[in-house]
Amino acid sequence: MSDVLKALEGAAPDTRRPLGEILDAVRFNEAGLIPAIAQQHDSGEVLMMAWMNRETLMETLRTGRVCYWSRSRGKPWRKGESSGQQQHLRAASLDCDGDTLLLQVDQTGPACHTGRRSCFYVTLDADEARVTSEPMIDPQTLYGDKTPH
Amino acid sequence: MSDVLKALEGAAPDTRRPLGEILDAVRFNEAGLIPAIAQQHDSGEVLMMAWMNRETLMETLRTGRVCYWSRSRGKPWRKGESSGQQQHLRAASLDCDGDTLLLQVDQTGPACHTGRRSCFYVTLDADEARVTSEPMIDPQTLYGDKTPH
Repeated sequence: MSDVLKALEGAAPDTRRPLGEILDAVRFNEAGLIPAIAQQHDSGEVLMMAWMNRETLMETLRTGRVCYWSRSRGKPWRKGESSGQQQHLRAASLDCDGDTLLLQVDQTGPACHTGRRSCFYVTLDADEARVTSEPMIDPQTLYGDKTPH
Repeated sequence: MSDVLKALEGAAPDTRRPLGEILDAVRFNEAGLIPAIAQQHDSGEVLMMAWMNRETLMETLRTGRVCYWSRSRGKPWRKGESSGQQQHLRAASLDCDGDTLLLQVDQTGPACHTGRRSCFYVTLDADEARVTSEPMIDPQTLYGDKTPH
C-alpha cells in the first residue's frame, strides 16, 4: 500500500490531502482500472458496479455526472448517454487500500440495462438462484435498437 | 454474457435455477476471482469489497459465514479469523452480467483493518481528499502483532 494511504489510516476525521496526491496512490489494476460501486445516496440500495480509469474518475469528480470506462467498448461511458438514465454524483470515496471506489449517486430510473432499478436481481442460496425483482421499464424503451449500456 | 443469465434478464420474479447452473455462468476473471461487495443488511452501509473464487463463494453460501479469497496471501480468508470481527451472510446476489456479487451481511464491529466500521473513509472531491470517519477500535486490539486482515 502507498505511504500516503498508510498515513491516513490513523488520521483524524477531517484530515485533508490534495486530490492529486491521492490519485497517485490509487491502485489501478493492470488495465489501468478501478472498480466503482454505485449506491443510491438516500435509499442505500447498491445499484451496480462498473470500472473507471484515472481520467473518467477525474471527469466524474469535476462534472458531478458519473462517467465509467466501458471495458467492452474501450471508451468512456457517461452513464445514461444511451438510455437517458443518468447518475449524478453526491459523494465519492476510496477504500483503505486504494483499490475500490464507492459512489453515492442519484440515479434517474433504472441503473440496469434490463430496466431494473439495480443490477443485483439474481439471489443465490446454497441450492438455487432466484430472480428477485422485475423491470421498472421495458429495456426497448430505454435503448430501442441500440446496444446497452 | 452466458445464455443462462441472458434468459433471466426478462424472467419474472421468483423464477428459479439450480445453483450449479448459475455458478457455471459466473464470469470469474483471469485469476478465477469475482469482486464481492459487503453491505450491512440493516443500515445499508457499504462496508468493504473483496474477492471470491468459486470455492469460497460456495463455502460462504453453504456455511453462512463470509469467506473471501485473499489475493495477497493466496488462500481463503474467513473474515474475522484474525480480528474476531466476523461477517455473517444474510443474502447474496449476482449482477446482470455475472461479474459482481453483492453480499448482505451482519458485520460484528469494524469491517476495516484500520478499526473503522467501513473501508470507505477517504472522501474525494474535485480538489481534495478528506478522512470522514474514525476507528471504532484500535487496530492493535484487533490484530495485536499479526498482519491484517
